Amino acid sequence: MTFEAVVEVRLKAGVADPEGATIHVALCQLGMEQVREVHGGRMFRLSIDADDPETARRIATTAASGLLANPVLEDYTVEVSDRSSGGVAAEHGVVPQIRP
Amino acid sequence: MTFEAVVEVRLKAGVADPEGATIHVALCQLGMEQVREVHGGRMFRLSIDADDPETARRIATTAASGLLANPVLEDYTVEVSDRSSGGVAAEHGVVPQIRP
Repeated sequence: MTFEAVVEVRLKAGVADPEGATIHVALCQLGMEQVREVHGGRMFRLSIDADDPETARRIATTAASGLLANPVLEDYTVEVSDRSSGGVAAEHGVVPQIRP
Repeated sequence: MTFEAVVEVRLKAGVADPEGATIHVALCQLGMEQVREVHGGRMFRLSIDADDPETARRIATTAASGLLANPVLEDYTVEVSDRSSGGVAAEHGVVPQIRP
């Protein structure tokens, strides 16, 4: 069974986000003053072969903590859905960050 | 009223994704051979002042098409949720890419 895991990596609260600030200024200059705040981040979509969503989530969490995110500066969330059933979510959860 | 818009920007199907391929190789070397595919992307969270979710979505779509995504290489999706009601989704939709 193939699951799709979406790992979202973003800066921890309090860490300077110059990319977000620059985009915010640019959007205001383009006339979108209604935008109050912008935060950038990275996203990874992983196709994972696993017997159940729990296993897929465990693998995605290991990938996130060990490679995709910098634990000093970044937080991450993991969401897993069942890809083989036409995109209907079989598992959808936010995994709290695991500290070594 | 403040809405949160999440703009996900990813490479169009068929565009080479060397970042994803590199991460895939690295995950296999780390023992996660169950991962079959990896695709990277960028994500932006925008806080938008608007009267209704439709307006917030229109602003986020304009920001995505005009600044956040490169329409030659990238696709984007926009999701809008009501931030003031404690994170309960008031609007959740995928906007098809708008061509100029």
